Amino acid sequence: MVMSAESHGLQGMWRALEGIGRDGRTGGYRRDAWSPAEQELREWFAQEADRRGLDRYEDRNGNLWAWWGDPDERPGVVTGSHLDSVRDGGAFDGPLGVASAFAALDLLRDRGFSPVRPIGIVCFADEEGARFGVPCVGSRLLTGLLDPRRARALADDAGDTLTDVLARAGRDPYALGRDREAMRRIGVFVELHIEQGRGLAPLGAPVGVASAIWPHGRWRFEFHGRTDHAGTTALNDRKDAMLPFAAAVLAAREAARQHGVVATFGKVRVEPGNANAIPGRVTAWLDARGADEAAVRRLVAELADGHEVTCESWIPLVAFDVALRDRVAWVAGQALAEAGRADGAATGENGRRPGRGGGKAAGNGAARGGRAVPVLPTGAGHDAGILAAAGIPSAMLFVRNPTGVSHSPEEHAEPADCELGVVALAAVLEDLCTGGGTRRTGA
Amino acid sequence: MVMSAESHGLQGMWRALEGIGRDGRTGGYRRDAWSPAEQELREWFAQEADRRGLDRYEDRNGNLWAWWGDPDERPGVVTGSHLDSVRDGGAFDGPLGVASAFAALDLLRDRGFSPVRPIGIVCFADEEGARFGVPCVGSRLLTGLLDPRRARALADDAGDTLTDVLARAGRDPYALGRDREAMRRIGVFVELHIEQGRGLAPLGAPVGVASAIWPHGRWRFEFHGRTDHAGTTALNDRKDAMLPFAAAVLAAREAARQHGVVATFGKVRVEPGNANAIPGRVTAWLDARGADEAAVRRLVAELADGHEVTCESWIPLVAFDVALRDRVAWVAGQALAEAGRADGAATGENGRRPGRGGGKAAGNGAARGGRAVPVLPTGAGHDAGILAAAGIPSAMLFVRNPTGVSHSPEEHAEPADCELGVVALAAVLEDLCTGGGTRRTGA
Repeated sequence: MVMSAESHGLQGMWRALEGIGRDGRTGGYRRDAWSPAEQELREWFAQEADRRGLDRYEDRNGNLWAWWGDPDERPGVVTGSHLDSVRDGGAFDGPLGVASAFAALDLLRDRGFSPVRPIGIVCFADEEGARFGVPCVGSRLLTGLLDPRRARALADDAGDTLTDVLARAGRDPYALGRDREAMRRIGVFVELHIEQGRGLAPLGAPVGVASAIWPHGRWRFEFHGRTDHAGTTALNDRKDAMLPFAAAVLAAREAARQHGVVATFGKVRVEPGNANAIPGRVTAWLDARGADEAAVRRLVAELADGHEVTCESWIPLVAFDVALRDRVAWVAGQALAEAGRADGAATGENGRRPGRGGGKAAGNGAARGGRAVPVLPTGAGHDAGILAAAGIPSAMLFVRNPTGVSHSPEEHAEPADCELGVVALAAVLEDLCTGGGTRRTGA
Repeated sequence: MVMSAESHGLQGMWRALEGIGRDGRTGGYRRDAWSPAEQELREWFAQEADRRGLDRYEDRNGNLWAWWGDPDERPGVVTGSHLDSVRDGGAFDGPLGVASAFAALDLLRDRGFSPVRPIGIVCFADEEGARFGVPCVGSRLLTGLLDPRRARALADDAGDTLTDVLARAGRDPYALGRDREAMRRIGVFVELHIEQGRGLAPLGAPVGVASAIWPHGRWRFEFHGRTDHAGTTALNDRKDAMLPFAAAVLAAREAARQHGVVATFGKVRVEPGNANAIPGRVTAWLDARGADEAAVRRLVAELADGHEVTCESWIPLVAFDVALRDRVAWVAGQALAEAGRADGAATGENGRRPGRGGGKAAGNGAARGGRAVPVLPTGAGHDAGILAAAGIPSAMLFVRNPTGVSHSPEEHAEPADCELGVVALAAVLEDLCTGGGTRRTGA
């Protein structure tokens, strides 16, 4: 991927990142939390922060912070995302938000901008949950939405617990947990992310803003059978755990169609996993999401009937702060228009700036703000959703994904769109620093 | 497991073996070919051979041999089995045959028996195929039924090829292949094995003899999808490789019922294997077997329709040498009767000894020999089947499995039955050494 020099270092950062944790065979990224590849990414973050003279530290939950200004004097405007990946994931999911944060800060400095509020850049730990099965571990621990005792007991496929892994990485597993000090520093959070899905492309919009994150959850199904010899055990004497699993896979698709939601079995573990042994146990993870929380719950209840099912995570609908959302959409739209590239602006022309106070008057400001970028919901979970659920005013910018493909090596955003994402993010940070109408701004 | 002193060391050998490669969580054995656990088992074999003053060597294919007498002077009577296991397998599948071989030799020596033909004990390498996916690698290479180039390219789950693994174990991967010298030494082969299935228990028989090994094979299915985000990809835009796999699992069971065979998907690999990613590729292994070769082939053809399928192994029906089979059944039955424990003897009382020449007269000798042990077919593959397919007169003794459970930590044989297996095996070895009617005997 080649970025122009206009992107204020995005090109250079991208080159530094592209080789880290990439699998030679699949071309996908394997950046498990606390793996050697992820450690390299942490070092990259530290270098980028140091190069810019930012105050950086790692909090008790492994999240990385870099501050321009002192957030203990006044809560800051925070942006960032994560650097870990799903297994064989793409280059953009996470890193685009972190690299764009540094690039936006550069853009502001180049313009001689001097913030009256501190600006923070964050990299959340273990957003994808690829290793330990639970997503957004860093932001959930920070906000208190994940019990540190439960986090410590999480185990990876090799049987190593998060406790073991943290200790080996030189971290204190007993320091995990809600971090009020780090939380107090966040006045408002804006996460830039590649779009996952294909909502912006048909609108011709390079950048959009999130309205809500669908309710979503992950459930572990245990199907029990009896291990036996695949050649010598008569069909009538078998209890093959693969059969109820297969039936559940097909039932999940049918139930998702009926309920208007999505449901996926993407991970499965078969024990003993020998080609010549009847499976004695199949463990499979169901991911289910949808606009309607009740529909998702109905689907899971139907599929769980008669099986041993454990809910591993559940996030209800996250509706982002409406006033903040509309303000971000309007400011981003203005910035893109000024950059001569407001390709995705709505066609309306009233251009009314949404009120600072939020509330009903601005409730559909994005629709009324002629130059606002599109506002759309998403089925993907994000750290911004965790922070929003914990009461921190949060917003998300999406950069267009032409194919909509995500969590795959084929995930892609055009360099020009990534540059526009940086332009939009810089404008939003500037606006929020100089008086964006959010809770805590006056603290 | 406690064996009595009568078993001539079986108890002691069992104690030495029981801790090797046992998983603390499942209680099952993980004795992959060329793993540290399997290396310990190889050392155990060497110690047992040395303790008895046997001439031992490892052949070019990693099979271990221990000889009493010189097989280069006259082809010998060989017994043994294997020491590797399926993952989370039981204690008996394999090791019972090797330990019983040493115990039977002890029994013969205690009686002052002096063989006029050499007696050999063998441990075949990688019988289960748990690591590289292809069973009976050691005996197939020995007999020329597996191309050494194909064997060298086999890879384990970590991506290590057999070439890598052998080189690291200090073996020469380019020495693999048909070994006429080792083959020439085998006059006749008898493998003792725990029964897999529950054929002997209803007959009240502690020991039986194999009539045939069902045709059996292993096929690798590749189901193709497109990796994408599990939350943001609409159902209609998905190509989820888990769905055709699930359909194949259910279709395999139904087709097996229709065709009167058995079919099992016991191993599956999902890529990328993230709970929040739509599977882009599912690789699954079908094991199919049955008395009727044409029925097995029809089932595979039906399931393969429209999919990418590779046959990884196929063994047609192996009918053991009829004369040898009947002789072994009769001699074993005699020995058990003399031991006062011919629990499983048929009720007929004519007791006619089967002719040495084989042929029609002895064709159903087991049924007519009043004291012969039961003769039964099996759906499990064995090294004895490979040797038989390669033209070496071979037979199998089965020790009763009360539950029929196999390839599982619950696999079990009663100590008393194991002792009777040793008694039967010793009698068979003695008989074959002193003039059993088999090809090559007069060589």
